[in-house]
Amino acid sequence: METSEKKRIQRTIWTHPTDPGAVCILDQRVLPHEVAIAELRSVEDVYLAIRDMLVRGAPLIGVAAAYGMVFAAMEAAKKTSFETALREGAARLASARPTAVNLKWAVDEQLKAINAAENENAGIGAARAGAARIAEDDIETCRRIGEHGLAVIRDIYARVKRPVNILTHCNAGWLACVEWGTATAPIYLARRQGIPVHVWVDETRPRNQGASLTAWELGEGGVPYTLITDNAGGLLMRQGKVDMAIVGTDRTTRTGDVANKIGTYLKALAARANGVPFYAAVPSPSIDWNLASGMEIPIEERGEDEVKYMSGLCEGKIRKILIAPASAKVSNFGFDVTPAELITGLITERGIAPANEAGLLNLFPEKGKAVLHEG
Amino acid sequence: METSEKKRIQRTIWTHPTDPGAVCILDQRVLPHEVAIAELRSVEDVYLAIRDMLVRGAPLIGVAAAYGMVFAAMEAAKKTSFETALREGAARLASARPTAVNLKWAVDEQLKAINAAENENAGIGAARAGAARIAEDDIETCRRIGEHGLAVIRDIYARVKRPVNILTHCNAGWLACVEWGTATAPIYLARRQGIPVHVWVDETRPRNQGASLTAWELGEGGVPYTLITDNAGGLLMRQGKVDMAIVGTDRTTRTGDVANKIGTYLKALAARANGVPFYAAVPSPSIDWNLASGMEIPIEERGEDEVKYMSGLCEGKIRKILIAPASAKVSNFGFDVTPAELITGLITERGIAPANEAGLLNLFPEKGKAVLHEG
Repeated sequence: METSEKKRIQRTIWTHPTDPGAVCILDQRVLPHEVAIAELRSVEDVYLAIRDMLVRGAPLIGVAAAYGMVFAAMEAAKKTSFETALREGAARLASARPTAVNLKWAVDEQLKAINAAENENAGIGAARAGAARIAEDDIETCRRIGEHGLAVIRDIYARVKRPVNILTHCNAGWLACVEWGTATAPIYLARRQGIPVHVWVDETRPRNQGASLTAWELGEGGVPYTLITDNAGGLLMRQGKVDMAIVGTDRTTRTGDVANKIGTYLKALAARANGVPFYAAVPSPSIDWNLASGMEIPIEERGEDEVKYMSGLCEGKIRKILIAPASAKVSNFGFDVTPAELITGLITERGIAPANEAGLLNLFPEKGKAVLHEG
Repeated sequence: METSEKKRIQRTIWTHPTDPGAVCILDQRVLPHEVAIAELRSVEDVYLAIRDMLVRGAPLIGVAAAYGMVFAAMEAAKKTSFETALREGAARLASARPTAVNLKWAVDEQLKAINAAENENAGIGAARAGAARIAEDDIETCRRIGEHGLAVIRDIYARVKRPVNILTHCNAGWLACVEWGTATAPIYLARRQGIPVHVWVDETRPRNQGASLTAWELGEGGVPYTLITDNAGGLLMRQGKVDMAIVGTDRTTRTGDVANKIGTYLKALAARANGVPFYAAVPSPSIDWNLASGMEIPIEERGEDEVKYMSGLCEGKIRKILIAPASAKVSNFGFDVTPAELITGLITERGIAPANEAGLLNLFPEKGKAVLHEG
């Protein structure tokens, strides 16, 4: 029964089947030990779900925020000033996490859609339609990223003629999106096409998204994987045990610098030093066309307890343990920036771009004007 | 009272004050939560203490093995063939861990001393004297490494005129040695001389020696430090927050390749990319004059549970939690090799050598013949 329960869940977020005032999410804090569903019914619920990482991953944060804007419109309709209340709801949602650009993008898209509607009720409807569209777009974007990335895996397989070893960091799987995932989409498609793959999963301290989410998701999907510490990738690359690396991104500048989970940069350095192709899977909503340098990306600094404590299963219960001196001072930056020159290619839904402005503009020519205007 | 207990312990290993048949060690598995002392009374006790990492760190492993050879001589004296039994004891000890060369070095030194003695009793005495000497030599070696490393810190301080930010990985502190430590000796000396320092402590997965040992030891010593995940060092270097890195070594080739705790290589790559000087503190017993390349160093592969489970304090008890899917496949290499070209200098007890054969032979000319002979 537990298995059938797990099998039923193939998405990270969905509208409640009977209650139009609720959105359901997988509570990712308790994976891989429990499969728990949470119901969100307000802007504050969505804000907290993003802030406390019940949902995480840049694409999913965007989709969750889009649903949050449905609640913002519903809540604003009960206030004296719809416009002010809507703006406040939007600001609250946008403030939940600072690094992923999808969050602000989704909130802005929804604001536009709501404001373009004829009246408040139509605005709520537009927000619902917008959230559904953003979710469906994410699925389609991931599928296309999968197809473009698949070509890379297929080429390597044609050369090595044994399972293709792919290293990934953090979770840029379907748990970070709605379905498919970004970095994992090429892997799932390769499996479907019978191309053998094996994934090295970085555990991804401090929140261990690799150990708890990517490992779980690949295991559920039947993809062979091996869990490693974040420290191990360099050695494996030196030993020739990594054919390629694919990571996700929380924000990519128009010049191709990639902000992603802390530690990504170290793997990119090792990849470069060992001739391992290093790709980022980049859905276009995660591209920040306003930024010309990764140094401008705000890096979220999170709490000390994420480093000092760890959660896990102990005698059937999820417990938290202290793993450092209680008095230890901690620094906990959530992301780092991998400079474009270390990146082999940016796998977008429109194809693989070299990690530079010309490469991205070639795939997204409609962004050229905005960039020129700003530059 | 707990504090005075802690203050009393300033060494990692010492002969039992009243029982000549016992050696005392700090059981490092329960730090930083408990300060526990274990008594070792046999070859098997020492073997298990090394294998199960009650003691760890290349220098301390060597010293512990030297004391183990006292037990080997005592046990052999009760057997029909002293020589065979002694050889078996030595082999047992040498097999406890594969990577640190100090282990084999200390066992061989002790074997020579015991075999050179006139009779079995004299052999036991020679082993006792040898173990004490190896321990004292380690203290003096660390102190000298401290003095040479201090010059580097002093130079940086003269330039930056603010606390010198030093990154270290794993624990190469006094807990890894007998006193002082290798990588930490320059830090402790700088503190004594009033040079302000701040240490970035990599937590060092999977065994978390940084979070549990280095953080504890620096805190006890009053050295300002900040605990970070292994993933964070690259970002900090890019942000200009690291002035230098110092790590220990488990084995260094005569050509200057440094085997050290897994993850060291990634930090060395980041240091090179960001112009941060990267030093290894290298006591000469950890130099393997027989090896011309780090690729020849055997890399210990440890059990899956070190990655899948973590220990820590929960409601006053040390508990173990599962942090990955129970079914996860894990790879757990204990060390990696940092190639000499990434290393600014090897801080030995005789001075700082450039990381190459000529540099090391310049400081240890007596090794030249052996190298030439072999080459």
